[in-house]
Amino acid sequence: MNTQFSVSIHILTLLATEKEPVSSQYIADSINSNATLVRKICRYLRDGHYIQSSQGISGYSLSSSANEIHLGDLYQLIFSETMHFAKIHKDTNQHCHVGKNISHALDEIYSEVDTTIINKLNTYTIQSVIDHF
Amino acid sequence: MNTQFSVSIHILTLLATEKEPVSSQYIADSINSNATLVRKICRYLRDGHYIQSSQGISGYSLSSSANEIHLGDLYQLIFSETMHFAKIHKDTNQHCHVGKNISHALDEIYSEVDTTIINKLNTYTIQSVIDHF
Repeated sequence: MNTQFSVSIHILTLLATEKEPVSSQYIADSINSNATLVRKICRYLRDGHYIQSSQGISGYSLSSSANEIHLGDLYQLIFSETMHFAKIHKDTNQHCHVGKNISHALDEIYSEVDTTIINKLNTYTIQSVIDHF
Repeated sequence: MNTQFSVSIHILTLLATEKEPVSSQYIADSINSNATLVRKICRYLRDGHYIQSSQGISGYSLSSSANEIHLGDLYQLIFSETMHFAKIHKDTNQHCHVGKNISHALDEIYSEVDTTIINKLNTYTIQSVIDHF
């Protein structure tokens, strides 16, 4: 499991509390990580229209306000739609009645759990995170 | 992310559909994995009282019926209680207001999401998985 979702929340929360655009190095210092990783995640966030890097101004800023960014939407951006909350094992034995059907059954059940996770996460915003400080 | 939760469901579903105790090799053939991995997961499942290996009889069998085994309880057994559905990055900058507080804030929010996941998963049993075949 990687930390991209948590780091994304960290970045958006940091930008929400800053008045001016901040650099990837400034963000990296807060995370205690490196600017390369930050830039990689910022690309995702920019493609998802969560952040922007304005022309002529160095650094990133939020595209919308902290109470408009819902964690469930962010979760969907970070984790691709084809990925479940739990990984399903592959290449099961197709000659076994369980091996043949387990992937499909788990896929259906996990999809419903994924929806529950996204709905629950959407009850929180970046502002909620700040409110937990 | 590893597949232990899905493989555990696979094992319990297989045992639920078998009349006689089955060996770790038989289970491994269904998963298309190896008996060593199966034995490792079976130790967890036995410690959690989901399966048993009867004296004098070779192989594993379910300790309770398929509609009494809830996936949320199983999820809690497989993933330790200290682990969230999403990983939180560590060693953030304690001199930054976000770096100092993000871990605690995410810990609280993620704990509530964990509970939602477990509750949702507990609406499914091993019998539900079979019903999805």
